Amino acid sequence: MSAYRFAVNVLPKDGILDPQGRAVEGSLGHLGVEGVSGVRVGRRVELTIEADNEGDARTIVERLASELFSNPLIESFAIEWVDIHAGAGR
Amino acid sequence: MSAYRFAVNVLPKDGILDPQGRAVEGSLGHLGVEGVSGVRVGRRVELTIEADNEGDARTIVERLASELFSNPLIESFAIEWVDIHAGAGR
Repeated sequence: MSAYRFAVNVLPKDGILDPQGRAVEGSLGHLGVEGVSGVRVGRRVELTIEADNEGDARTIVERLASELFSNPLIESFAIEWVDIHAGAGR
Repeated sequence: MSAYRFAVNVLPKDGILDPQGRAVEGSLGHLGVEGVSGVRVGRRVELTIEADNEGDARTIVERLASELFSNPLIESFAIEWVDIHAGAGR
């Protein structure tokens, strides 16, 4: 068994209303920041999976991403591999 | 002026209680999933910044990450560059 660490990035799909993103854009004026657009706010889930091989680990993370971490009607997700030895400060 | 797209990943700092992560771990048994640990749930913010150069854009995104997107007492953030031409499906 080996340990594999992944991150799942979940964002509202294009065309889906993103009220948190609009709220961020609305607050930029108060900060005196200009030139910012296209703000999308989503989730990031990091997790470690113990599995026999990377393929088995990916099968599990894909299932969790689609069934538990995201709502496929309104959100899309992307899975990235995280270097388990580079976690300092995270 | 050029457009630069970034993602800001915000996660609870090590040692800080992460109730959402615990909730995910608690629900894994119901899904029949084993071998998952170290779940951390945070935010991901993607945004486009118009600036004269990449350095100016990075200065803005770092300010937003520390002042608006994260609480530096309990959260850490990492900034990544996003390929603005590879956004299909996101």
